Amino acid sequence: MASGGEVKLFGMWASPAVRRVEWALKIKGIEYEYIEEDLSNKSTSLLEYNPINKQVPVLLHKGKPIVESLVMIEYIDEVWNHNPILPEDPYERTKARFWATYSEGKCRDAVGKVYFTEGEEKENAIKYLEDIVRVLDEELKGKRFFGGENIGFSDLVLGWMAFWLPVAEEVASFEVLDSEKFPWFASWTDNFLQVPVIKENLPPRDKTVEFFQNYRQQRLAA
Amino acid sequence: MASGGEVKLFGMWASPAVRRVEWALKIKGIEYEYIEEDLSNKSTSLLEYNPINKQVPVLLHKGKPIVESLVMIEYIDEVWNHNPILPEDPYERTKARFWATYSEGKCRDAVGKVYFTEGEEKENAIKYLEDIVRVLDEELKGKRFFGGENIGFSDLVLGWMAFWLPVAEEVASFEVLDSEKFPWFASWTDNFLQVPVIKENLPPRDKTVEFFQNYRQQRLAA
Repeated sequence: MASGGEVKLFGMWASPAVRRVEWALKIKGIEYEYIEEDLSNKSTSLLEYNPINKQVPVLLHKGKPIVESLVMIEYIDEVWNHNPILPEDPYERTKARFWATYSEGKCRDAVGKVYFTEGEEKENAIKYLEDIVRVLDEELKGKRFFGGENIGFSDLVLGWMAFWLPVAEEVASFEVLDSEKFPWFASWTDNFLQVPVIKENLPPRDKTVEFFQNYRQQRLAA
Repeated sequence: MASGGEVKLFGMWASPAVRRVEWALKIKGIEYEYIEEDLSNKSTSLLEYNPINKQVPVLLHKGKPIVESLVMIEYIDEVWNHNPILPEDPYERTKARFWATYSEGKCRDAVGKVYFTEGEEKENAIKYLEDIVRVLDEELKGKRFFGGENIGFSDLVLGWMAFWLPVAEEVASFEVLDSEKFPWFASWTDNFLQVPVIKENLPPRDKTVEFFQNYRQQRLAA
C-alpha cells in the first residue's frame, strides 16, 4: 500500500459521490481515515473544511481540504501517479472529462427528476432518462469499459449509475434498465460491479434501498 | 503567434461559453478559424461533431471534436503549455477546478433562475444569486484576480459573470451587483474586463442586451 501522507475522507455511507472517491483511493492503494458524517447534525470539521457547500465528500490531504468529488479524483491522480485513472493522451482526457460533465449534469438531473416527481412529470422524466441511457449504451458499444479493457475516469464517474440506478428503479417503481434495449449498458454495469475494488466498496443494497425510500418520501412530502 | 495546427471553433457570438474558449485560445496565441452557427438552423458539421448535446461551442483540433467549454480549456492548456492557464501546483488546481464546478452549477443556475422567473420566484432567485456573489466576493478579498496577480482558469471560467451578469440585470430589471456590498467582486469585474485579451474579445453590449431581451421574452412566453 502506498502511504497517503495524511489523507482523511469525510463521507456518508449511502452517497455515490463519496464512494467514487473511495474507489479512486483504493485503486491507488492510498491509506486513508474515513469519517462518517451525520448529515442532520454536521460536524464542525465538515463545516470548517467545506464552508461553501457544507456537503460530503471532503477530502483532506496534509490538512488541506478538497471539495467536489471529481476534483478530488483529478487531484488523487495527479499527486499519486501510479495506477493512472485519467488517460495520458490529451484527446482521450477530453472524452473522459466530457463524460464527467455528462454524469454530473444530465444523468444526475434525470435520475433526480424520476425520483422526486409523480404522474405525467415522472413519465416525461423516465423518457428523458431513457434517452440518456441510450447515449451511454451507444458509447459502450463493443467495449468492456468506457476506457476500454480496464476501468478509468469515465467508469468511476458514471459508475454510480451501475449501482444506484437499479436502487432508484426499485425505490421509485420504474424500469429503464433493459438488457434487450440497452445491452452494452447492461453488460457494462455487470462488468463494473464485478471489478474487485468496486464490488468490495459498495454500500449494502437493502439498507441503501431503505435509505432512499425514506429520502424520497421526505422530499415528495415537502 | 503559435500555430494551432488545424483549430476550428464553432460558436455563437452571444454565448459566454464560446467566448471563454476564445479567451483561452487568444491567451495562448493560437490561430483558429471561427465558424458562427445559426442555432435555429444548426449546420450538419455541428450536429456531426456534437451529436449528443448539439450545442456550441465545439472545438475541432486536427479534425477531432472536443465538447464542453471547460474541457476545451483544459485541453488547450495541456496541448499548448506556454502561457499556463491552470496553476501548476495540484492543490491550487483543485481550487481552480472547484470554481469551475461552482460556475457551471450554482452560478449558472442562479442567473438562469433570475432571468426566467417572475414574482416571488424571481425574488427568491435574486436572494440566492446574492448569496453566490457574496461567496465570490469573500474569495476575492485582497486579490486582483482569483489566481492572484494574473488571470487564470478560475477567472476565465467565472469571467462570464463580469460581462453577462450586468447584461442580465439590465434585461431582467434586477440589481445584485453593488460595489458597496460586494467591493471585491466589483473590482474584480473591472480588473477582468480591462485585461486586453478579454476587452478585445467581448460581444457588443447593446446587441447582447437586445439578444437576451428577445430570448427572455420567448422563454417566459413558452
